[in-house]
Amino acid sequence: MGVADLGLPVDVPSTALFTDHYELTMLQAALAAGTAERRSVFEVFTRRLPEGRRYGVVAGTGRVLDAVENFRFDTDVLGFLRERGVVNEPTLEWLASYRFGGDVWGYPEGEVYFPGSPILRVEGSFAECVLLETVILSILNHDSAIAAAASRMSSAAGDRPLIEMGARRTHELAAVAAARAAYVGGFATTSDLAAGFRYNIPTVGTSAHAFTLLHDTERDAFQAQVSVLGQGTTLLVDTYDVAEAVRTAVEVAGPKLGAVRIDSGDLLLVAHRVRQQLDELGATETRIVVTSDLDEYAIASLRAAPVDAYGVGTQLVTGSGHPTASMVYKLVARAESADPQAPLVPVAKKSSGGKTSVGGRKWAARRLDEYGVAEAEVIGTGKVPQELTDRLLQVELIKGGQVVAREPLDVVRDRHAAARAGLPLSATQLSRGEAVIPTEYV
Amino acid sequence: MGVADLGLPVDVPSTALFTDHYELTMLQAALAAGTAERRSVFEVFTRRLPEGRRYGVVAGTGRVLDAVENFRFDTDVLGFLRERGVVNEPTLEWLASYRFGGDVWGYPEGEVYFPGSPILRVEGSFAECVLLETVILSILNHDSAIAAAASRMSSAAGDRPLIEMGARRTHELAAVAAARAAYVGGFATTSDLAAGFRYNIPTVGTSAHAFTLLHDTERDAFQAQVSVLGQGTTLLVDTYDVAEAVRTAVEVAGPKLGAVRIDSGDLLLVAHRVRQQLDELGATETRIVVTSDLDEYAIASLRAAPVDAYGVGTQLVTGSGHPTASMVYKLVARAESADPQAPLVPVAKKSSGGKTSVGGRKWAARRLDEYGVAEAEVIGTGKVPQELTDRLLQVELIKGGQVVAREPLDVVRDRHAAARAGLPLSATQLSRGEAVIPTEYV
Repeated sequence: MGVADLGLPVDVPSTALFTDHYELTMLQAALAAGTAERRSVFEVFTRRLPEGRRYGVVAGTGRVLDAVENFRFDTDVLGFLRERGVVNEPTLEWLASYRFGGDVWGYPEGEVYFPGSPILRVEGSFAECVLLETVILSILNHDSAIAAAASRMSSAAGDRPLIEMGARRTHELAAVAAARAAYVGGFATTSDLAAGFRYNIPTVGTSAHAFTLLHDTERDAFQAQVSVLGQGTTLLVDTYDVAEAVRTAVEVAGPKLGAVRIDSGDLLLVAHRVRQQLDELGATETRIVVTSDLDEYAIASLRAAPVDAYGVGTQLVTGSGHPTASMVYKLVARAESADPQAPLVPVAKKSSGGKTSVGGRKWAARRLDEYGVAEAEVIGTGKVPQELTDRLLQVELIKGGQVVAREPLDVVRDRHAAARAGLPLSATQLSRGEAVIPTEYV
Repeated sequence: MGVADLGLPVDVPSTALFTDHYELTMLQAALAAGTAERRSVFEVFTRRLPEGRRYGVVAGTGRVLDAVENFRFDTDVLGFLRERGVVNEPTLEWLASYRFGGDVWGYPEGEVYFPGSPILRVEGSFAECVLLETVILSILNHDSAIAAAASRMSSAAGDRPLIEMGARRTHELAAVAAARAAYVGGFATTSDLAAGFRYNIPTVGTSAHAFTLLHDTERDAFQAQVSVLGQGTTLLVDTYDVAEAVRTAVEVAGPKLGAVRIDSGDLLLVAHRVRQQLDELGATETRIVVTSDLDEYAIASLRAAPVDAYGVGTQLVTGSGHPTASMVYKLVARAESADPQAPLVPVAKKSSGGKTSVGGRKWAARRLDEYGVAEAEVIGTGKVPQELTDRLLQVELIKGGQVVAREPLDVVRDRHAAARAGLPLSATQLSRGEAVIPTEYV
């Protein structure tokens, strides 16, 4: 896999170091004990949705496929592990030829999920599967958290476009993944050039307060911007006095001015005033973009305001109060012996202290009511009931180590919109509530 | 700068794409208007601390220095910007030879900060400075948020070591930065191998529930682990029944067993029971590590429990409720003209809608009381009062584009411990409160 496939601006020589130390010590102990080759099934799921949330959004699956394909222990990495004494020589030898050769099934990216949904299933030897835990969870926990917030925001925004502009509020590379997840969740564009470069997401942006402050007058700044970016540009009108700025903006750009941006103040009030002023100035087509500390609630509260687009930063990239999706990666079944034909035994943690899980390899289906609306997430370990065979959710993602399900991001985005539309209407209520459909185990 | 300096496992060919689209359109408009070369001063600060927090922690400065040094527009990046029409040809030409040639001063990494503290000051032409906004904020907002949470946790833990183990709960590369920030904030070790590789932070880890479940019995699992990792290892004792596991653990490893780990349940209660049981079994030196959903409050509540070390994941990497530090990067002064000798004019946003700031290039000093304890963060734009000249906080980080203040992470970690110790005692109270010292403007 070349650099281009992995995606600049960041070339990841290997994803194998995005791994917790204990994955390698477990490998070493299992190799010595002769249990490393036991066929194993790991599943990714979450025990609960974030408090008050009605559905989750699977995001990051495409990045997981890249990460698994690229999970290699090269000379530098092996040298580090040797020097630090993380594992012994036989383990280092085993790692040197590591390639994931197992199978991965999962919910397709963009699909919604509920407590217990087996979002990803990784099958192979214990050794080859256990190593992938950390990087798979990092990606799914981050990206799904962002996509869930994005989905709520896009449903609150209705037909009005959302601009992702949170890069400055999160780690510089998390920002790139966040822009991707936001796009999956329904955002239209991003401010992040790296996300445009890597994922071909449309990028947008015009100017900040600093640009106005750089110039001797606001008029100078607007003239400078319009003369280069054209009258279709977006002028930022809240550096000094909004009403004066709007007047100057239309004088400078003419009534065909593309948009004005408001980044502070009481947006509901200011948007109404600015709309009225623009209309009076003949700039009836000039759009209003608002961008100040928005979340899904603020977006919803502006539904009746004359706003044409929303820019969202902090609350998007921090998952609007829930920056991680609390997914776990659990061994749910393993063979009785290292014999490839040995039958699988379901396993599960049993301690009374919580964190218990359901053993066994699971299927999942979404049962619909008579109107075609989702009514339950059905999860089972045995035979799939006849009536659910065409409602199964998991698809094959990796077969014998080969990725078989790469897809364009627009397909994922459309899938999410369709999946959300298939939920009961209460799914998109912003008020706190339970998961919009129950999880049933059969 | 070679790959080794930037740090594997991620080679960043350029940090220039970690940039919002509008930085480049502002550049283009300023170049055309003849204002791009006006000497400018940008400052990074936060208007407020996260609600209830008493101090902030500067973290990420070292990463900022790397990012600025590596901020280049290579052929691939320029090709992307051209193809997408982000900026015009004259701007692309300007970008092709971009190197930051200005000066950066700032609080040294690990120092504490308060509302308004000018944490970083970037000086140069408007053009060269404005481009750095996004990547500088991404790094400082993320890393400082994590370090602040880490600092609270380490002060709650006292002398007991903290293990950072949150990689799986955040973006895979944010995790590496989080481990670094946690170390600055007082953590002792990390589970993240990439953080060990990149920043030389000690890594630790032994086994998870999956390892126990892989084996036919818990005893088999413990024997496998002890035979390879030695009796000094840490055995996870809450897969089935804790009391039985502890008995088995000491039988298998002997009374010199290194540690047991508890990852679920009522940790206060279980820790007491396990300590008593270990002591009765003669394993008086065996340590108890707890790792279940800890935050600074849970750590503090376990102060009286027989716990020897804490592992912290989710709450650490998500900033314990505050995943971003809300720092901004504001133009505070700029020259009247492009003439290098032109005097600087203080500038600031003035709109009534909030988000106002104080114009002018600032100094900052921490005033001490008669006992040597911090009593105020003093910020000014004019001459430094005589009595504060030896309490100034900002240091030179980049001079004429050259990094002049690289330092080992242990120095940063020690600086943070010393800075925190210099605050009033109430700084480390976990209860919600105001900033522990006031910010005064002179």
